[in-house]
Amino acid sequence: MVTDAATGATNAPTVGFLGLGIMGTAMCRNLLKCGAFSKVIVWNRTASKCDELVAEGAVAASSPAEVVQQADITFGMLADPEAALKAALGPAGVAEGVSAGKAYVDMSTVDEATSQQIAAAVAAKGGRFLEAPVSGSKKPAIDGQLIILAAGDEALFKECEAAFSAMGKRSLFLGAVGAGARMKLVVNMVMGSMMGAFCEGMALADRAGLAQSDLLDVLGLGAMANPMFALKGPALQQRQYPPAFPLKHQQKDMRLALALGDALDQPLPVAAAANEAYKQAKSKGYADADFAAVYEATQISNLSLN
Amino acid sequence: MVTDAATGATNAPTVGFLGLGIMGTAMCRNLLKCGAFSKVIVWNRTASKCDELVAEGAVAASSPAEVVQQADITFGMLADPEAALKAALGPAGVAEGVSAGKAYVDMSTVDEATSQQIAAAVAAKGGRFLEAPVSGSKKPAIDGQLIILAAGDEALFKECEAAFSAMGKRSLFLGAVGAGARMKLVVNMVMGSMMGAFCEGMALADRAGLAQSDLLDVLGLGAMANPMFALKGPALQQRQYPPAFPLKHQQKDMRLALALGDALDQPLPVAAAANEAYKQAKSKGYADADFAAVYEATQISNLSLN
Amino acid sequence: MVTDAATGATNAPTVGFLGLGIMGTAMCRNLLKCGAFSKVIVWNRTASKCDELVAEGAVAASSPAEVVQQADITFGMLADPEAALKAALGPAGVAEGVSAGKAYVDMSTVDEATSQQIAAAVAAKGGRFLEAPVSGSKKPAIDGQLIILAAGDEALFKECEAAFSAMGKRSLFLGAVGAGARMKLVVNMVMGSMMGAFCEGMALADRAGLAQSDLLDVLGLGAMANPMFALKGPALQQRQYPPAFPLKHQQKDMRLALALGDALDQPLPVAAAANEAYKQAKSKGYADADFAAVYEATQISNLSLN
Amino acid sequence: MVTDAATGATNAPTVGFLGLGIMGTAMCRNLLKCGAFSKVIVWNRTASKCDELVAEGAVAASSPAEVVQQADITFGMLADPEAALKAALGPAGVAEGVSAGKAYVDMSTVDEATSQQIAAAVAAKGGRFLEAPVSGSKKPAIDGQLIILAAGDEALFKECEAAFSAMGKRSLFLGAVGAGARMKLVVNMVMGSMMGAFCEGMALADRAGLAQSDLLDVLGLGAMANPMFALKGPALQQRQYPPAFPLKHQQKDMRLALALGDALDQPLPVAAAANEAYKQAKSKGYADADFAAVYEATQISNLSLN
Repeated sequence: MVTDAATGATNAPTVGFLGLGIMGTAMCRNLLKCGAFSKVIVWNRTASKCDELVAEGAVAASSPAEVVQQADITFGMLADPEAALKAALGPAGVAEGVSAGKAYVDMSTVDEATSQQIAAAVAAKGGRFLEAPVSGSKKPAIDGQLIILAAGDEALFKECEAAFSAMGKRSLFLGAVGAGARMKLVVNMVMGSMMGAFCEGMALADRAGLAQSDLLDVLGLGAMANPMFALKGPALQQRQYPPAFPLKHQQKDMRLALALGDALDQPLPVAAAANEAYKQAKSKGYADADFAAVYEATQISNLSLN
Repeated sequence: MVTDAATGATNAPTVGFLGLGIMGTAMCRNLLKCGAFSKVIVWNRTASKCDELVAEGAVAASSPAEVVQQADITFGMLADPEAALKAALGPAGVAEGVSAGKAYVDMSTVDEATSQQIAAAVAAKGGRFLEAPVSGSKKPAIDGQLIILAAGDEALFKECEAAFSAMGKRSLFLGAVGAGARMKLVVNMVMGSMMGAFCEGMALADRAGLAQSDLLDVLGLGAMANPMFALKGPALQQRQYPPAFPLKHQQKDMRLALALGDALDQPLPVAAAANEAYKQAKSKGYADADFAAVYEATQISNLSLN
Repeated sequence: MVTDAATGATNAPTVGFLGLGIMGTAMCRNLLKCGAFSKVIVWNRTASKCDELVAEGAVAASSPAEVVQQADITFGMLADPEAALKAALGPAGVAEGVSAGKAYVDMSTVDEATSQQIAAAVAAKGGRFLEAPVSGSKKPAIDGQLIILAAGDEALFKECEAAFSAMGKRSLFLGAVGAGARMKLVVNMVMGSMMGAFCEGMALADRAGLAQSDLLDVLGLGAMANPMFALKGPALQQRQYPPAFPLKHQQKDMRLALALGDALDQPLPVAAAANEAYKQAKSKGYADADFAAVYEATQISNLSLN
Repeated sequence: MVTDAATGATNAPTVGFLGLGIMGTAMCRNLLKCGAFSKVIVWNRTASKCDELVAEGAVAASSPAEVVQQADITFGMLADPEAALKAALGPAGVAEGVSAGKAYVDMSTVDEATSQQIAAAVAAKGGRFLEAPVSGSKKPAIDGQLIILAAGDEALFKECEAAFSAMGKRSLFLGAVGAGARMKLVVNMVMGSMMGAFCEGMALADRAGLAQSDLLDVLGLGAMANPMFALKGPALQQRQYPPAFPLKHQQKDMRLALALGDALDQPLPVAAAANEAYKQAKSKGYADADFAAVYEATQISNLSLN
């Protein structure tokens, strides 16, 4: 932060934030609290959701275009690809307000095509663009512990250092626009297969007369120990799956990752087999349960015989 | 350790140890060092391997039978099922020396049938038996940080507490004889599928223009973070697989776990798909490489096009 | 065929035909030869391809629109979805010429969405529509032995009886527009999995020291005997795959069928595994070979060790 | 058949037959009827089952050893490996009666190890051996239309020409003892995967709003047309599976074929995926139904939602 000797005004950059849902509000609050920015301008589709942050020092604007016009860098955290597209390309959207020197950083989770479309619209107006989807949910967002998967304009990535430090524990620059979306697919594919492997182990243990709690203990003590097994193990034991990451979303990501592999001629037989298990679980009525409910696809006889 | 007031002699139990390979020597040394035993009697097929421990306070015997006759509890750590069977049931073996009140704890990695066979022979002579295969290799053996998967005689398991504490960081009692062998299969099946999932993620990242190091970073920061990915990631990046756990052994364990699932009608489609990848890697000449070489099964085009 | 008593003119319907490639020329010639139509009007993008059929009695027109205006029922047999869309919806296309009472029967192989789009355009102008992709290639087309998978307007299907009898050995009415495209996917998915099963059998026979010719004999004598095994067996034995149905098209159909299963939550693990084998074969350079080259995906070691 | 000029007696060989179940009785009757043998000597564990054939001209003996002593070539058709072993190696079994010049042809369906064991026992006594399992069930046995998969002594195979012609429509000589058993596994593996592919097609058709009868028609008209689809299609439509070949036997053969592939490092991903479906169907209670009941593994939602 540089202070102008004559005016006493800081030269700290001004930032904007679009989308104040649960994630966005937490992330934006961390931008406010870090003290690195002279001004934080916010917008939300339902304007009343801005009140909380305005009370904490933010300034509300009436449209994405207005935010972009006032801020050096604007961050977006919209609910889904449709909302991200509307905020970026809709009436009074980012593309209307952006101009040379301005930057837009979309942190929403969107597919590669959507990201490319927003990038092109921003570039067409002379603006700069970064896609920056995050890994992590509510708790890490509040604690400023997200993992940020950035791709696009590398200089802009560096300028975002203070902001990313406020919101996340780590930010990675992955390459050209689209790389962030692809990385999320690859990571979620590994997660989906790994959960499938875990469920088969839990099911086989049970059938083989072993206590599942013993298997969890052994897995937790060795080279495979990981937070996900520890967290989801009890869910499998109780066959209760309160949704953290809904199974239908996991299955959609498996499908998209398989499609990516298909387009690149990359054989992915383990993921393909796991995907079929997610489809079975969906088919059995677990689409909205947590993705750990893929365990139910391994429990054929229990349901039909009991 | 209890001291007999009249004689001044300690009542600390006497223990025996059969098999002084890399693992056995390290484990037996921890028994010696812990001070809980009045005597440690050792035997090895090649007798000279006993010298080192004898210099540290152990007493050598000339056969497994002799060890069992002198010790309250005898531990075995033989190289493979054949060696385990020979030490237990061969000439001057455990079964010849065992009698009521004596106990044999086989910590070798053997299949369930072998374990049952040894258990029956010991029981037929009035002895007590525990199977106790371990999870962990050289380093944890030296550090007394093994995980001990025990099954069989539960009272004996409790009597082994001091010994297991000296050799491992955790011991679990899993049930009747055979449960230890089955648990190892289940754990190794999960490990094999998980490695298969990891390799597909690394391969897809590469094909999709992402840096594998970025994927490793992201995986290492999230809920899937585990020592195995951290350890094996560089091997995949370099496509060099110095053997820690040979691929042919991993594939054998997958096969045996699938056979167990088959016998129990437990569908295991993810493990079945992963097993086929191990078979491909074996077929390509990676049988003796580390099991991480299953990565080569995902690298179809590179080998054939280069 | 009805003769008008006053004029002596027959009331036999007039038919049109769009697309005179190898398939289309053969099919249209059968319409000409059957004698059921008073006039056969033809169009092809490259006009010179009409000459042959004009010499045999057809009448050439200069655009799809002109054909449709002159014919009661117009058949289309275009090379791919793009060509089918252009002939139907492009300048001077079917949609421009069609009107109440006119009918368009698209026999091209197109995806369901393309078919729906053409159907909607024809309906918007008051015309009637039938999709009617065929099963069978050059030889059955010449011999009038195609299988016609029709869907859309059932009354129109019945009116096409004479035409379909001239071109095919059997026509089936499958339901609403889209059913024809879906049926082709299902059939090709079964074909792809069945070929995968066949290749594994041939590979295992070879590895197990059995003569592949003996396996072919045994398969040819029993309940599984089918023309495809008989036709493709020698290709596998010689590892030569002159393209009849290119592997990349088979893989595309597997992918689309799996996507259909995905949309409907229908588990398809066998097809998913087979699809991965096609991807491997593609990855090894067999995209343009016959789909029987999926056999190369089973021949891992031969290629990498030789 | 050669007539001895001096005695008028024919030199036609004498044959024996062990095992008069449904299959054996039909096969032996064809030996009797063909007129190529001077005498047909029969034995069955339950002696009364011989009566029928004795009435038709056969001669009963009291043990396998007695049959072998009287016959030039003895055929066996026992119910399972246990019965085959007992008839061959048990008290008064084939091995007791066999000697130089005598031959035993085991047509029972047994595993390779059992076949090798019987071959060795016969050879140890100087006898000759052929394994000759058959493909086909009751109807082809009655009609003399079996397929005979022979392996072992090739000269003996040629001497069996008249007998095999009487019992089968085709006999193949496959190589050394064991090749017959392996060929049956390969064939049944292809059959199991092909049935799995067929079931997925039927299930997808149904979910996609297509009539299964239409799919059956289309499959029956094209290059995939085969008796099995025609026979089993209605079973799938009605979800009724009267056992012709029990699912548990098909699954066992899949398992053994996969084990063979495993031993030979032959990847078999399609068969592995199909095997998991058979396991699911077994798990759902269809072990004793016809193997077409693997269709139930594709019908996840119906059972859980109804």
